[in-house]
Amino acid sequence: MTNRRVLIECDDEKGLVYKVSTIFYELNLNILSNSEFVDSENGRFFMRSVVTTESSDLELKDRLRALLPKEAQIKIVTDERKKIVLFATKESHALGDILIRYDSGELDADILAVISNHSTLESLTSRFDIPFFHISADGISRKEHESRVLKCLRDFEQIDYIVLAKYMRILTPEFVTLYENRIINIHHSFLPAFIGANPYKQAYDRGVKIIGATAHFVNNDLDEGPIIAQGVSHVDHAYDWHGMQRLGRDTEKIVLSQALKLALEDRIFVYKNRSVIF
Amino acid sequence: MTNRRVLIECDDEKGLVYKVSTIFYELNLNILSNSEFVDSENGRFFMRSVVTTESSDLELKDRLRALLPKEAQIKIVTDERKKIVLFATKESHALGDILIRYDSGELDADILAVISNHSTLESLTSRFDIPFFHISADGISRKEHESRVLKCLRDFEQIDYIVLAKYMRILTPEFVTLYENRIINIHHSFLPAFIGANPYKQAYDRGVKIIGATAHFVNNDLDEGPIIAQGVSHVDHAYDWHGMQRLGRDTEKIVLSQALKLALEDRIFVYKNRSVIF
Amino acid sequence: MTNRRVLIECDDEKGLVYKVSTIFYELNLNILSNSEFVDSENGRFFMRSVVTTESSDLELKDRLRALLPKEAQIKIVTDERKKIVLFATKESHALGDILIRYDSGELDADILAVISNHSTLESLTSRFDIPFFHISADGISRKEHESRVLKCLRDFEQIDYIVLAKYMRILTPEFVTLYENRIINIHHSFLPAFIGANPYKQAYDRGVKIIGATAHFVNNDLDEGPIIAQGVSHVDHAYDWHGMQRLGRDTEKIVLSQALKLALEDRIFVYKNRSVIF
Amino acid sequence: MTNRRVLIECDDEKGLVYKVSTIFYELNLNILSNSEFVDSENGRFFMRSVVTTESSDLELKDRLRALLPKEAQIKIVTDERKKIVLFATKESHALGDILIRYDSGELDADILAVISNHSTLESLTSRFDIPFFHISADGISRKEHESRVLKCLRDFEQIDYIVLAKYMRILTPEFVTLYENRIINIHHSFLPAFIGANPYKQAYDRGVKIIGATAHFVNNDLDEGPIIAQGVSHVDHAYDWHGMQRLGRDTEKIVLSQALKLALEDRIFVYKNRSVIF
Repeated sequence: MTNRRVLIECDDEKGLVYKVSTIFYELNLNILSNSEFVDSENGRFFMRSVVTTESSDLELKDRLRALLPKEAQIKIVTDERKKIVLFATKESHALGDILIRYDSGELDADILAVISNHSTLESLTSRFDIPFFHISADGISRKEHESRVLKCLRDFEQIDYIVLAKYMRILTPEFVTLYENRIINIHHSFLPAFIGANPYKQAYDRGVKIIGATAHFVNNDLDEGPIIAQGVSHVDHAYDWHGMQRLGRDTEKIVLSQALKLALEDRIFVYKNRSVIF
Repeated sequence: MTNRRVLIECDDEKGLVYKVSTIFYELNLNILSNSEFVDSENGRFFMRSVVTTESSDLELKDRLRALLPKEAQIKIVTDERKKIVLFATKESHALGDILIRYDSGELDADILAVISNHSTLESLTSRFDIPFFHISADGISRKEHESRVLKCLRDFEQIDYIVLAKYMRILTPEFVTLYENRIINIHHSFLPAFIGANPYKQAYDRGVKIIGATAHFVNNDLDEGPIIAQGVSHVDHAYDWHGMQRLGRDTEKIVLSQALKLALEDRIFVYKNRSVIF
Repeated sequence: MTNRRVLIECDDEKGLVYKVSTIFYELNLNILSNSEFVDSENGRFFMRSVVTTESSDLELKDRLRALLPKEAQIKIVTDERKKIVLFATKESHALGDILIRYDSGELDADILAVISNHSTLESLTSRFDIPFFHISADGISRKEHESRVLKCLRDFEQIDYIVLAKYMRILTPEFVTLYENRIINIHHSFLPAFIGANPYKQAYDRGVKIIGATAHFVNNDLDEGPIIAQGVSHVDHAYDWHGMQRLGRDTEKIVLSQALKLALEDRIFVYKNRSVIF
Repeated sequence: MTNRRVLIECDDEKGLVYKVSTIFYELNLNILSNSEFVDSENGRFFMRSVVTTESSDLELKDRLRALLPKEAQIKIVTDERKKIVLFATKESHALGDILIRYDSGELDADILAVISNHSTLESLTSRFDIPFFHISADGISRKEHESRVLKCLRDFEQIDYIVLAKYMRILTPEFVTLYENRIINIHHSFLPAFIGANPYKQAYDRGVKIIGATAHFVNNDLDEGPIIAQGVSHVDHAYDWHGMQRLGRDTEKIVLSQALKLALEDRIFVYKNRSVIF
């Protein structure tokens, strides 16, 4: 008796819920929760069910496959701990937030490693007995740096998500393609405002009264990937950009950890650069 | 071809979604949206579907009635405009907010009348050509006052909701019972903090840094009814209680109007003094 | 015995507070509130005091002028009601919010007129016995339209602020220059995100999880003027852009009214496209 | 040349700012920032200035003492690192948040020790090389337990603040009196709602739509001390109380760390159980 997350995405048509629930009923599954959404603009159907089942995943998948449209994307996921790798650079707040959750057992994932282009966070990481790989980018090309990172990643059998916990380097399209919708970044602005470098400086210069942070999957356009979660905090004229940065870090780390939690619980669908989150 | 909102609430058991979706499928309904929730602590199932149907409501209801548990509460609601009566006293912000939405066509309801224990808001109400009934409470008992209010209400054939738009009088249990879960109140605090009179004064005295407002259905315990929506705003030491009141009014009116919208769209279930909102 | 708001802005130097407070003391003013701020990046000093005075404004101003740096900007403002003109187009929520506040006496200003390029809001405006001027832009040049608007404005002896309550036209530099930092606009996005047309559609397409609104003074760059206030609300995948628009209107109107209140109370300084707000 | 924070609190009277700024001017201090507030309900004046000074603290204090009312409270504080002790029980999120800030250098204080009535957090604390004292309360009286805690505290020469990072025990009046307005607690509700035990369970039962957290100084009435900071997050019917607790922890830790930062920067005045925060 184990829990399964059943994720279905396909073009909308009449009877989809009927079909899926019929299969669940015939296989005698117990439904713990059920969420559906139809993106009516795009005619797209999304469904996430958590079920308890004695039947095999294969049988369930075969039955769904038989009844649902051919193009349907069907995933059946056990709720076992996922494996993640964290990328970071010098700032410790986002990394630290995840480490504390990991240490307390709140984070439902194994952290395989922390990879950084600087050595700054080695001591923090090692406090939690997690492997730290310092892969410097000094004096080598982006391509070369990434190939060293990839070599490091290849040592792990399974990587479900890569979390960019304030990793201040841009990934190449080649890298991103390898982990499509599996790289989660935190951008320190309320996207799409202040794309690119030093968004707090940009925000200060623009004189905003609210600053934000955005967790998103990484795709090949800088800061343009599908948004998972956003958060904001209020500022006033007394904040210079360093003050905005200090305040903003609290939002950054919370929003990143919330996005990571949604991913680990298989709650996120991505369609046409937008996320559907159950 | 009209839209129907199908609302189902019953004790949870296996196969409920299967049964409902089978009926929808067999009656050839088109499902526009579908929301379910199981309150696992109480073993209670809630479902709201918006469907397009050519079949009669009666047929749909009979079919659901036949398959669902006996105690199931089944409502099939057309999306036609509901009828509401507004109660107010002296403050105009909440009333005004609803009137502006009414005037623009945003409010999906007919306002039958404004009833007030003071005449203050008569001129505002009449600007919008809505009947205003000044039913003074001076020198008469609560019972007598309410019987006059009820007499006024009885002139209307149908009243779906009574909206207390800062109505500063307490309703008797007899009155409340007549309109169970159909009276929406806005309380000017973040309930359950600051129950009762002058919550802003209470909030000021307590030195809070956030003030709030709470829209809820009225039941027989003062400010204890099921909460529909809440909102907050930040304050600091520079706010005296009048300043909190001025700022709080913005939250009050928005939260009340949001709660009213949820009610008009039949999105609210109430179970054990808690609301399930789809 | 009347209240005065004393507004001082100048380059920062040692002793400014000492000098100002010495003058206040020698003139026997009673200080009700006092706010100062030094923008240390730009070396700029801002001060707003509310004082009760029997001495003449002229004497106070002369004394301040004598002691403060030559380039200092000194304003002494009585707290009498200001005069405003509202511009609107078709949407009524922002206009309506101001009208309700006006009707209740909450708005500390006289509304001289509502000017619109459409006739849609004439009936709402006339409900409040406020002159409505429909100045159509159909078939005439922007220049010609504005000259008609200006002609209309010239009939008023004094205009302190022009409030663009969802006025969907762009003002020319010539017009803006006439009312520098006296035109308040509400933009229906979290600036600088989604500048320009249909920001809710842009926000929907980008898949944001938070939408916003921004009140700002208008300058000659579209949506680039100094920000006064911002507000946000949370959305999810179930919001299409019309839903975002409906929800966003609540934030728009509240943020605009809050910004207007700040302006009417002379709480806003503008320096280098940023606002200092006491 | 060092920075000093000058904190003044006294009954309001004409000329206070004049007097203070005259002294600052005559002593040739450079004012970096200046905040004043008059609590007009209570006729109380508060002022916080950050100044750069070559003169001795003693001279400055003597001069202020001579000119200000006799009852004035005058503090001159250097901005050197303060010393704090953390109390915790079993939950690690609030403690962890502070430890991460400490490790990165963001926290402007030395953590002398973590004291806990359980051993759960010993391993986390020791990861950061901070002394951990497990002082069990099992089988001994509250008085006895506290005397052991106090004995432990007495080993430290200087303790500026005690931070209750989810310390789940109630302190006695005797203990609280020893550290008046120097013990900062985080209560896991939006006070004054849900005072006492298990506020998330209470919040769930009440069916709230927003949950909160409150950082406050501890006084002798449980959860009744002066509030420093509050934060909220939105919940819906899908949250059971464990879900509320998980979500609420993010707000708790951020609010506690923000309150601690305000305290470490000497920004908080307490008067009549309310806080004035510059």
